[in-house]
Amino acid sequence: MTYRETYAQQRESILRDYFTFLKFPSIATDPEFADDVHACAHWLQEQLQSCGLDVELWETSTFPTLFATDLRAGPDKETLLIYCHYDVQPVDPLNEWESPPFEPQIRDGKVYARGAVDDKGQCFYTLQAIKALIEKHGRFPLNLKFIIEGEEESGSTGLYSILEEKAEALAADHLLIVDSALHRPGEPVISVGARGMIALSLSLRGSSVDLHSGLVGGVAYNPNRAMVELLASLHDSSGYVNIPGFYDNVVQITPGEKEVIDFSFDEAEFTHNFGAKTTGMEQGVPPGEAVTLRPTLEINGIHGGYGGPGIKTVIPAKVEAKITCRLVPQQDPERIALLLKEHLLSNVPGELELEIDILPGHGWGFRTNPHSKIAEAMRQGYETVFEKPCTSVLMGGSIPIAGDLARVSGADVVLVGVGLPTDRIHAPNEHFGLDRFEQGFLTICHGIEALIT
Amino acid sequence: MTYRETYAQQRESILRDYFTFLKFPSIATDPEFADDVHACAHWLQEQLQSCGLDVELWETSTFPTLFATDLRAGPDKETLLIYCHYDVQPVDPLNEWESPPFEPQIRDGKVYARGAVDDKGQCFYTLQAIKALIEKHGRFPLNLKFIIEGEEESGSTGLYSILEEKAEALAADHLLIVDSALHRPGEPVISVGARGMIALSLSLRGSSVDLHSGLVGGVAYNPNRAMVELLASLHDSSGYVNIPGFYDNVVQITPGEKEVIDFSFDEAEFTHNFGAKTTGMEQGVPPGEAVTLRPTLEINGIHGGYGGPGIKTVIPAKVEAKITCRLVPQQDPERIALLLKEHLLSNVPGELELEIDILPGHGWGFRTNPHSKIAEAMRQGYETVFEKPCTSVLMGGSIPIAGDLARVSGADVVLVGVGLPTDRIHAPNEHFGLDRFEQGFLTICHGIEALIT
Repeated sequence: MTYRETYAQQRESILRDYFTFLKFPSIATDPEFADDVHACAHWLQEQLQSCGLDVELWETSTFPTLFATDLRAGPDKETLLIYCHYDVQPVDPLNEWESPPFEPQIRDGKVYARGAVDDKGQCFYTLQAIKALIEKHGRFPLNLKFIIEGEEESGSTGLYSILEEKAEALAADHLLIVDSALHRPGEPVISVGARGMIALSLSLRGSSVDLHSGLVGGVAYNPNRAMVELLASLHDSSGYVNIPGFYDNVVQITPGEKEVIDFSFDEAEFTHNFGAKTTGMEQGVPPGEAVTLRPTLEINGIHGGYGGPGIKTVIPAKVEAKITCRLVPQQDPERIALLLKEHLLSNVPGELELEIDILPGHGWGFRTNPHSKIAEAMRQGYETVFEKPCTSVLMGGSIPIAGDLARVSGADVVLVGVGLPTDRIHAPNEHFGLDRFEQGFLTICHGIEALIT
Repeated sequence: MTYRETYAQQRESILRDYFTFLKFPSIATDPEFADDVHACAHWLQEQLQSCGLDVELWETSTFPTLFATDLRAGPDKETLLIYCHYDVQPVDPLNEWESPPFEPQIRDGKVYARGAVDDKGQCFYTLQAIKALIEKHGRFPLNLKFIIEGEEESGSTGLYSILEEKAEALAADHLLIVDSALHRPGEPVISVGARGMIALSLSLRGSSVDLHSGLVGGVAYNPNRAMVELLASLHDSSGYVNIPGFYDNVVQITPGEKEVIDFSFDEAEFTHNFGAKTTGMEQGVPPGEAVTLRPTLEINGIHGGYGGPGIKTVIPAKVEAKITCRLVPQQDPERIALLLKEHLLSNVPGELELEIDILPGHGWGFRTNPHSKIAEAMRQGYETVFEKPCTSVLMGGSIPIAGDLARVSGADVVLVGVGLPTDRIHAPNEHFGLDRFEQGFLTICHGIEALIT
């Protein structure tokens, strides 16, 4: 029986379980959902066990990491480590969802739900592929270690807390991270690198209470004004990050890498898909390099004062903001976070009080060998399923733990997945085409078949 | 019986009715509370009738204006027009209230509730003073016109819509606006001017959907970044508003006015009361003039992207902001609003889409004769009650309709009240000392007695 036939036969029960997985609101970043994150981990543990895997539930400083193995291939065979995550992004703005984020709905051949793609969808077809490989071969055809963590979207705090002590358990030859996307439908890519990340939270206070813009307007330095002035200073007029030292250590790409890696970027497609313009680049940087080879600084949130209908003549006591940076290889996350923090603290207007929290979620950017055995195998898997050449790209996003996971496991790493830029991951109405769910399943199956031949 | 004795005798029933008044969530700016605004108006109508006044409920384009009269003094007597409002400010951030904003509580001799001062408290002691004057004199001792509108906090849209057609009804010799504050406890002031206002709402959009800061970060121009850059450009490095033409027509104060009007400002007291620094002035402007003689531009709200716990790596589709300006005499609100709108529209970074609504709430700033008959009478009323000299000041806040109401009625205008800068009007935990409620009542009684002698 082919893998395609296996999928067709089990499709109904696979989708039923996938939907159950999606119904857990496993938003690890929000304490309100802590119980749901734990419940999701326990449900997933049972799913892994029912595939015939040995499962350990690693307790961490925060949420559990699942570690499932099939080591029956024995010490003579190579070891494959696969990484996914079961946590999801927050869902706000909730009112922009066309159906509730944790009540999956199929519309037009697509599953709509938070996590439909990122990363529950990709995690679940991977799990089904592992099951199919075990059924076909009687056991997993090489040694398998499958790690599924619960805090990828908020910095992998828990997994980081146990990573070094689990180094031996995680040792592997190949590392497959299934949390990535195609660039466009039907055109397979593997990612041979990703950007790193840091995250900061800012709170800028001007007074102990909200003030009246008539009674004290003109004397009080409005925290909203101070915050916009402070944040506006973070980019120069050419779009470069305006923090001394920010670009130190940024590694240029080698001519060899540049030859293999695809940096194309379709601006018309970007505008068509998102209704957005490509006006945010550092001056002189082509868009395909801007989203992969260049670090960024983004204001992910800013909230101060009145936001309701009409007007309120308030000078708010405080304003809050959230900032993340995407980092590239050799930018030390800790150093960049401190640079940014010091720069902000020493440039506060109006003598207001600024508090900065460096949030969990740091990760190094990395680039890996585009010709590793796992890279070649996964390209072959993609080409078997999609019947098109598979290119190598760099991922603009971050799997914060990926760089450290590769180091600790000693494995060559490649990032795969069948998401699409239009899947609205991290946004309202996240969705995943059921055709791609199947393609993802088949790609894992055929990629691993290629790895063992 | 003295007015003080009258108050002591009726105190219990006065406070009971005052509390009922406070319980209506009459937030006119928020459509959710429209029914409550109407209910409040009808309750107030009954209160006015029970004082022996003839009451008309003027329907407007939005919420009703109450117009209560006692014209029994006859055409030989002068006419006094009194203005108050029954709408209140929104209550957010709701979680910072120590008791629910529409369930008034007495703590430590102070009433805590939204509107406790502004303007329901001041409106209600005024109403009780009118009642006491009528009881004492058998009728109001001159012709009384008492106008109470329902949208002062959001631009007096309704009252503006009928103002010209009601000019004859509103004709008066004296205009008393009871919506003002003392500078500090026990030191009476009257205001002989107020600042005007404009309000704008901004929506800046970069894409049709929220974007992922990994997938497109570096290419998309983050609307949060564009908004902070745009808003940061509105002040120069000396704290002056950076919009060409903004300061045209600003009328300097005359030496005569400067001699009469008190511009003192206690910076230590400001810092003590609000935990705030006096760092927001235009360079070279003393604080007492900054809050009265100078126009301002304030960002009252800015909201874009994620604001929950932890982090969300989003580039939001849009960000919104609210801006108000306080204006001084001869700054045309309509002209300034258009200047600001055009300046913003022609300086949008990243080719993003900016939409601007000019909100209701425009009002001219004004200054009036500090030696008018009503000014002299009210100073005398204050001095009788507080046994201290009453100074003349300019109000930093705005009664948007005040300038136009003075023009239409043909009256000399003076602003009075017994609020305090520490009453947290417009903020959580608004409160009014019951001692001042009584002083307000007595001041209206004695001021009007002074006006008729």
